[in-house]
Amino acid sequence: MSLSLPAFADIQDAAARIAPHAVVTPVVNHAALDALTDAHLYFKCENLQRGGAFKFRGACNAVWSLTDEQAKCGVVTHSSGNHGNALAIAAATRGIAAHVVVPEGAVRAKVEAIERAGAIVHRCAATIAAREAKAADVQQATGAVMVHPYADPRVMAGQGTAVLELWQQSGGLEAIIAPVGGGGLLSGCAIAAHGLASAIRMYGAEPSGAADAAQSLASGTRVDHFVPNTVCDGLRALIGAPNLEALREHRVEVITVSDEETIAAMKLLWQQLKLVVEVSSATVFAAVLKQRERFAGRRVGLVLTGGNVDLDALPW
Amino acid sequence: MSLSLPAFADIQDAAARIAPHAVVTPVVNHAALDALTDAHLYFKCENLQRGGAFKFRGACNAVWSLTDEQAKCGVVTHSSGNHGNALAIAAATRGIAAHVVVPEGAVRAKVEAIERAGAIVHRCAATIAAREAKAADVQQATGAVMVHPYADPRVMAGQGTAVLELWQQSGGLEAIIAPVGGGGLLSGCAIAAHGLASAIRMYGAEPSGAADAAQSLASGTRVDHFVPNTVCDGLRALIGAPNLEALREHRVEVITVSDEETIAAMKLLWQQLKLVVEVSSATVFAAVLKQRERFAGRRVGLVLTGGNVDLDALPW
Repeated sequence: MSLSLPAFADIQDAAARIAPHAVVTPVVNHAALDALTDAHLYFKCENLQRGGAFKFRGACNAVWSLTDEQAKCGVVTHSSGNHGNALAIAAATRGIAAHVVVPEGAVRAKVEAIERAGAIVHRCAATIAAREAKAADVQQATGAVMVHPYADPRVMAGQGTAVLELWQQSGGLEAIIAPVGGGGLLSGCAIAAHGLASAIRMYGAEPSGAADAAQSLASGTRVDHFVPNTVCDGLRALIGAPNLEALREHRVEVITVSDEETIAAMKLLWQQLKLVVEVSSATVFAAVLKQRERFAGRRVGLVLTGGNVDLDALPW
Repeated sequence: MSLSLPAFADIQDAAARIAPHAVVTPVVNHAALDALTDAHLYFKCENLQRGGAFKFRGACNAVWSLTDEQAKCGVVTHSSGNHGNALAIAAATRGIAAHVVVPEGAVRAKVEAIERAGAIVHRCAATIAAREAKAADVQQATGAVMVHPYADPRVMAGQGTAVLELWQQSGGLEAIIAPVGGGGLLSGCAIAAHGLASAIRMYGAEPSGAADAAQSLASGTRVDHFVPNTVCDGLRALIGAPNLEALREHRVEVITVSDEETIAAMKLLWQQLKLVVEVSSATVFAAVLKQRERFAGRRVGLVLTGGNVDLDALPW
């Protein structure tokens, strides 16, 4: 076992830790979508999670994993999206400060949501280097604990709790598929799934315009430079080193999908399932539609990761 | 007990009858909405029901209540909306014909959905008289059984099953609120609720521009002529006579809300709960927001009735 990856027991601990704060999100089925794919699909609705995304699980576990001594100066992260918002909400549940470093050019509505959740927003230039430097500055100045969006084992353990619930709610599964960006969710889910049943087949869904995880698995070397080109704004991060290690250990296969396939899947999820999910979330359904033969006849869990969508700017 | 109203046992039978076909829709909570209303809110997500609305419950119960002899010529109704679609889907589950009388001027997307579900669509002029005449013609010509959208006791019993689930899923409630148009849902829910626990307070939510149920209860006489003026297209029907009787028997109070209040509530449900529901569905949340003191501190069930929304024509 790697020091930088959570164990199954850590995920079970995380589930107990976040239970007073997180939503046990529903799992939904749909007869017509089952017929369309010839599979039994169980959609885990993390779009209905607190903050509108699964990210609250990891952030909440990280915040409540801290000792009082560690927690007293708060937490810090760099994120302009769902992780920043989730960390702000999680910190509020413990009454501690959240510092969120936000790059120039971030979507204003998202930054406002982070502020509304009570976080202290720190601005920086729109490069990875600037973000990391600023976060380090804030950490040094405040004593806040860094909570990385995906490479942190506490975050991975928190995200993995989604699969513990999905397994219980569905009555068992043969395959699970989750989107992959930085890989916090997918690595946590893989560890959780194989703690439950070693036979579960684990899949990631990745935009073909940000297929660094697929390439890293195929080449055996982590791609550490990549210019993403995809509408899936939640999946543009490079896969983290520990996350990639978890994908390898758990023999996770990554299926790539085009933005067109993902947008069509997002539309179908709305039309049939009546759920508006983030375009990143729709990659999982796009992957099942694309590789029908892989999933035919199987009980498949799909993690719908978030619902923070601008209804005035739908991608279709 | 009235001959034209279902008993609690009929609702229990309906639950068993529709179980193989209907979705046990999720119930969701939201900490921020609880804080906003100072109540404990349990949202029953019938927008995630088959066909995107609670209507499938009643239609399915009606279809499967028929003997083989009765069922052999199919079913008929007049509806341009969710009931027509629900009856079409329900008939398909039994492999029988569904005839749906649709007035000229009905929304094309809805008519197409009814056709896609396998129903035979019959056109008529856009008056109540024309609809009823056409439905009677079809009934006579085909031998199909009429399934009225709300005044049919089998339909009321089916709609009431939503409350059996909601009660179970929420762990008990002090008040339940559902929208009222024709009153099929509200009457079924009231009978179900008081079969479970006589102390449950039952409320209807009605657009002030279609407040015939509120007026009928206040005046003691059923309003049988009314020109509705509301964006809530699902709630424009006049309350049915047996439905009104059920509301009286069960001391249901009707809260009226303006379209502005309903639209604001619909937007808030999207922003916070991440569910896009029909504007008619949002009346229940608008009513709780409007009459906060009534619901403060209480465990309140809210039936979100449907999710068949045109995302390109949101009302805000």
